[in-house]
Amino acid sequence: MSERIVIAFGGNAILQSKQKGTVEEQRANVHTACLAVADLVQAGHQVVVTHGNGPQVGAVLLQNDIAKEQVPPMPLDMCGAATQGQIGYMVQQSLTNILRERGMARPVVSLVTQVLVNSDDPAFTSPTKPVGAFYSQAEALRFSTEKGWSMKEDKARGGWRRVVPSPDPIGLIEKEAVLSLLQAGAIVVTSGGGGIPVVEKGGQYLGVEAVIDKDLAGERLACDVRADTLMILTDVPQVAINFNTPEQVNLGTLTLDEAKIYQGQGHFAAGSMGPKMLAAIRFIEDGGRRSIITSLAMAGQAVAGSAGTILHK
Amino acid sequence: MSERIVIAFGGNAILQSKQKGTVEEQRANVHTACLAVADLVQAGHQVVVTHGNGPQVGAVLLQNDIAKEQVPPMPLDMCGAATQGQIGYMVQQSLTNILRERGMARPVVSLVTQVLVNSDDPAFTSPTKPVGAFYSQAEALRFSTEKGWSMKEDKARGGWRRVVPSPDPIGLIEKEAVLSLLQAGAIVVTSGGGGIPVVEKGGQYLGVEAVIDKDLAGERLACDVRADTLMILTDVPQVAINFNTPEQVNLGTLTLDEAKIYQGQGHFAAGSMGPKMLAAIRFIEDGGRRSIITSLAMAGQAVAGSAGTILHK
Repeated sequence: MSERIVIAFGGNAILQSKQKGTVEEQRANVHTACLAVADLVQAGHQVVVTHGNGPQVGAVLLQNDIAKEQVPPMPLDMCGAATQGQIGYMVQQSLTNILRERGMARPVVSLVTQVLVNSDDPAFTSPTKPVGAFYSQAEALRFSTEKGWSMKEDKARGGWRRVVPSPDPIGLIEKEAVLSLLQAGAIVVTSGGGGIPVVEKGGQYLGVEAVIDKDLAGERLACDVRADTLMILTDVPQVAINFNTPEQVNLGTLTLDEAKIYQGQGHFAAGSMGPKMLAAIRFIEDGGRRSIITSLAMAGQAVAGSAGTILHK
Repeated sequence: MSERIVIAFGGNAILQSKQKGTVEEQRANVHTACLAVADLVQAGHQVVVTHGNGPQVGAVLLQNDIAKEQVPPMPLDMCGAATQGQIGYMVQQSLTNILRERGMARPVVSLVTQVLVNSDDPAFTSPTKPVGAFYSQAEALRFSTEKGWSMKEDKARGGWRRVVPSPDPIGLIEKEAVLSLLQAGAIVVTSGGGGIPVVEKGGQYLGVEAVIDKDLAGERLACDVRADTLMILTDVPQVAINFNTPEQVNLGTLTLDEAKIYQGQGHFAAGSMGPKMLAAIRFIEDGGRRSIITSLAMAGQAVAGSAGTILHK
């Protein structure tokens, strides 16, 4: 059965935390990720790709910071836009090449994508998401005064970092373009890095200094394009309860109600499985058919229903 | 009469040479440029936007160079992709806002765009286009040996720079996606910075360390989308012969034959009006209805036929 599937790659699918960040590393990782996407296309599915940009936007922010005396640094929305260009390019070139190799030439294209957030989102009053370089306490104080940045100490890594709001995504500004391209048979890469966050003020869209969780944005994308399946790819083949304890149980197929009970019991950690399960839950609540959380290696089997954690109504 | 028009903005439409390169400057310039685009949309035309990226890719290359000990520098194709993201974002947001303000909500979207070049292009054996930072002679020698870069001295500005090939564009890889979006009524921003240059080897597209002239790429774009008009925007309202001499004559409407005679007489300088006139000539030779070269301020009048330099069969 042919489905419309939104696939959300983690930043680690493009750059692993132990790696240096060279273009060769990123291209090799992107190639591996795109092989899995190509398998789904070959199986007859209509695919929309979204991806994280954590390591890449970190690198761009660091370059901006180091070169700030010579080159005016760009704000966060512009840095996010730059990573959409970079990662989108790697994904569309790699996927195009793999599909051509398999004799399945198809248009593949990446869109610069803005994602609407609410300017009244409570996240704007309590920034939580660390971005960019590490600073000394003195520098942190200075940036706080000069630029109005919120700064937070990361004791484990011995430095201060800027923290920015992570508001809830409402939807894609470029939704219509994505739908037109899907209708024309294209494979679309969109909402990279959770999308460039914009607010609406007096009918105008304005970029904001924030980051959007890429899985929650992926859920909005999946709704916007009326996807059958939202598939979130991560490091592990299945979600677990009692994770990392002797009572750990990996989850196969589960209902929305079961998922919400586990969520309420606090099984899914805030910085890792929490937002993924939240996105998976929201997608079913919003009328989606199923949400899958699994690893890249298990993607094909999970879509076929025989691997991963699968959430349905 | 409604036309399909490809508009090519110069890099100076986004960042003027005297400016520092802040995001505020770039946004203000982009806004001005988008007002002219919105006028054409309002007049009923179907518009495709392309743009230069000289100052922006220069800034990204400089950041990459300055931060190279901490962040692995990206190759030229990735830096070009980053600028497509940045500039595309500014243009699509600004144009969306202007159209909304005028009650003409329309999808506006930027595509990451690869442009095919021939791996046998003679440009690859004689790189001519300076990119990135200025280096000392010793550094230039080192990069030449270590990285295989071609380096050239810029005596006027006192330093050595890398020079890269500027091959002739063949066509857009993402042509089908652009056409689908136009058919759906979208305004498309594409082929930014002349596109990301790729060669085809064994059926695979590979990015190359080169830059494509954005007007020549705009000409290929105009053919790919079967545009009626290719409009190249520059600093001056009209092209001139005997430029900057007492015999200067500004050109209004002229035929392909006339243009080729002037071109043969060497009236159009290599680094400035030369490629623009070449693009304008090629478009008519390739079956286009008319090519316009004019300034941003004259864009609307030129499309109406009462300003600019207009080339036709």
